[in-house]
Amino acid sequence: MSPTKPTVQANGTTYRWPLRPVVVVCIDGGDPRYLQRFLADGKLPNFRRFVSQGFAGVADGSMPSFTCPNNMSLITGTPTARHGISGNFYLDTATWQPVVMTGPELLRGDTIIARFAAAGAKVVSITAKDKLRKQLAKGLDVSQGHVSFSTEFVEKCTLAENGIENVLPWLGMDKPGMYSMELSLFVLEAGLKLLKERRPDLLFLSLTDWVQHKWSPDEADALRFYERLDDVFGRLAAEDITLALTADHGMSDKSNAAGEPNVIWLQDILDAKFGKDETIVICPITDAFVAHHGALGGFVRVWSRGKVTARQIIDHISGIDGIELALDKATACRMFDMPPDREADVAVVSREDVCIGASAKNHDLAGLKGHRLRTHGGVSEAKVPFILSRPLNDAYKVKAAGAPLKSYQIFDYAINGTA
Amino acid sequence: MSPTKPTVQANGTTYRWPLRPVVVVCIDGGDPRYLQRFLADGKLPNFRRFVSQGFAGVADGSMPSFTCPNNMSLITGTPTARHGISGNFYLDTATWQPVVMTGPELLRGDTIIARFAAAGAKVVSITAKDKLRKQLAKGLDVSQGHVSFSTEFVEKCTLAENGIENVLPWLGMDKPGMYSMELSLFVLEAGLKLLKERRPDLLFLSLTDWVQHKWSPDEADALRFYERLDDVFGRLAAEDITLALTADHGMSDKSNAAGEPNVIWLQDILDAKFGKDETIVICPITDAFVAHHGALGGFVRVWSRGKVTARQIIDHISGIDGIELALDKATACRMFDMPPDREADVAVVSREDVCIGASAKNHDLAGLKGHRLRTHGGVSEAKVPFILSRPLNDAYKVKAAGAPLKSYQIFDYAINGTA
Repeated sequence: MSPTKPTVQANGTTYRWPLRPVVVVCIDGGDPRYLQRFLADGKLPNFRRFVSQGFAGVADGSMPSFTCPNNMSLITGTPTARHGISGNFYLDTATWQPVVMTGPELLRGDTIIARFAAAGAKVVSITAKDKLRKQLAKGLDVSQGHVSFSTEFVEKCTLAENGIENVLPWLGMDKPGMYSMELSLFVLEAGLKLLKERRPDLLFLSLTDWVQHKWSPDEADALRFYERLDDVFGRLAAEDITLALTADHGMSDKSNAAGEPNVIWLQDILDAKFGKDETIVICPITDAFVAHHGALGGFVRVWSRGKVTARQIIDHISGIDGIELALDKATACRMFDMPPDREADVAVVSREDVCIGASAKNHDLAGLKGHRLRTHGGVSEAKVPFILSRPLNDAYKVKAAGAPLKSYQIFDYAINGTA
Repeated sequence: MSPTKPTVQANGTTYRWPLRPVVVVCIDGGDPRYLQRFLADGKLPNFRRFVSQGFAGVADGSMPSFTCPNNMSLITGTPTARHGISGNFYLDTATWQPVVMTGPELLRGDTIIARFAAAGAKVVSITAKDKLRKQLAKGLDVSQGHVSFSTEFVEKCTLAENGIENVLPWLGMDKPGMYSMELSLFVLEAGLKLLKERRPDLLFLSLTDWVQHKWSPDEADALRFYERLDDVFGRLAAEDITLALTADHGMSDKSNAAGEPNVIWLQDILDAKFGKDETIVICPITDAFVAHHGALGGFVRVWSRGKVTARQIIDHISGIDGIELALDKATACRMFDMPPDREADVAVVSREDVCIGASAKNHDLAGLKGHRLRTHGGVSEAKVPFILSRPLNDAYKVKAAGAPLKSYQIFDYAINGTA
């Protein structure tokens, strides 16, 4: 570390210049229960080494426990109340149309990597799905030697747009399918190769949760995925870096004993009570790839068109078996640190074993193909791993002793908190 | 450790024989914010050493965040749902009278210290206030060399009842007042002297939160108390023990800018709406010593006499500014892991800056004497320190990486989890 290297401010947090490259990995859907099971079984030697020699705990993720909100929390170091991305969608009550929240113009504040890039660092962000790419690249001028791309559109990479091109031949891998564990592994292999060749200062590598939606910690394919993750994490850590591992959200089994999903069809329930078109249920888990969960999650939003009050909605649905919380906007935003201007009249959280959909007729569950429904979005899925390959320094041991660990602190801990 | 020493089972957890004496201290009201402040200021060298060389994090306490429920969680290793003590009081709906829940007959399951005592260990429990003593001593035959007493009744100790007598001359200290920091320090000095003279296997030392109710982390008297704690913790740790420090609950400032308490007088509100005697509000923080908080807390229970439904109560109070959650019995018990048979029809949690009372006329706030009201009971006060003087062994590093830390695991971590 050169003594002349500046500190960097992002959204109120001060970061020192990294002592060595910092690689933050978001293991999408990486519920702590996978590690609990596999580590207890003596698997995953590299994870085990980080836990033993570095730092490991379970942190509070941001709410709702979805992918976009939490990736933005990780990359900005702030809760959703601050960065504004509280789901994949919100409802624009001027048009009554859902608005996709994956545009960088909706992200409030700067990303940590963009602030470091502006200070002269070289940064990389790679994601499995393209939906995250543009927000992660907010404020980043890739012509300055940075890299930002997704596996999903890897074959379309250009130097102008992504800071890299011809990725498939460069990496020597085929493009993986959207529903495969290789989609995530590709992100990590590309990050490792960039690390070896260019040694950037900060890397953010964000995976996809197809595996965790599909397989529980008891299933061999989940172990196989984690063993492959463990292998590449070992190779990453060998590059004299600080490796930080967290998740955007956990994952819960939401099926019954017969293997059928425990679903509350909330739009149908509200339509039956208040009439069609009086309320609008938005499932903020929805994106272009929903076969593995049928757009069913543990958190939905309900807007009223004006005739029905939030209190009436809450009264009607609070007693439904499987509804854990039905909260008015102010309460939901205060409890979960979410942005009020993008919150619904009522925020609804389901119990760990239950999910919520809108209308039965609009959810295609064919993609589950005999698998149990595993999904996320609620409080039950808001606990995530928080693992560093290096031990904390004393100042951050003190910090960890004095306040609950938040996953959005992962860059702070990885950059400022390690020895 | 003799190889013939047995393992001990308590409430489903297996404990190995302690490698050395284990001293668990419940710093009543020991909100993590005190340590955050004082450690950041470079104070408390012994705490700092434990944080640096041992293990330190912030754990989830049991709900509600009151003294009795959490002391019972610590001493049994279970949540309130399991041990049954969910407050200082519950309402017996056969008689409609509040029942004090501090009797050992209401505690379900065994204490960890009683199970160890039955296996041949020597154990000690000392509390500041007598209300906890009998529950902590459940199943303990003090004639077998164990000790159990409270500072409150220290002058009444007998060998038959407490396993010790003439404590004041033995310790060489005067009996402290019920409203003093010495009430807690006395507990620790007595524990240290017993440790030196008898070297028991397990000690549970439970303090009182008079200081934290009275002074914020910004006030000099709070620092003075923590410096005195730090001093005796240093002397305890020097005795070749494992020292474990946690709290029963945190503490929040619940006054407004003018210094007046932000109180919701819930019984008055319910009486005005539903008529007198239709609902009964129980403040489970109430005990014999309430001058420092006026029996105002962040969690109350509402029973209906039969005419009013839980839903009607929830509808009426949910919108009140300062009410964070108003939950029916089933939801409250599921969310907070509390025992349904001792839960009210409605459980009410206030926001961090607000407290809840029953009827204004029945709360005496004279004891606050110009101090800001600081109290606890809600979700905002359910995060507590979790500090060990020795580092975790690898198995417990794995455990901490795989599941959120619960304060009721403190004996488990201290006995099984240290090197």
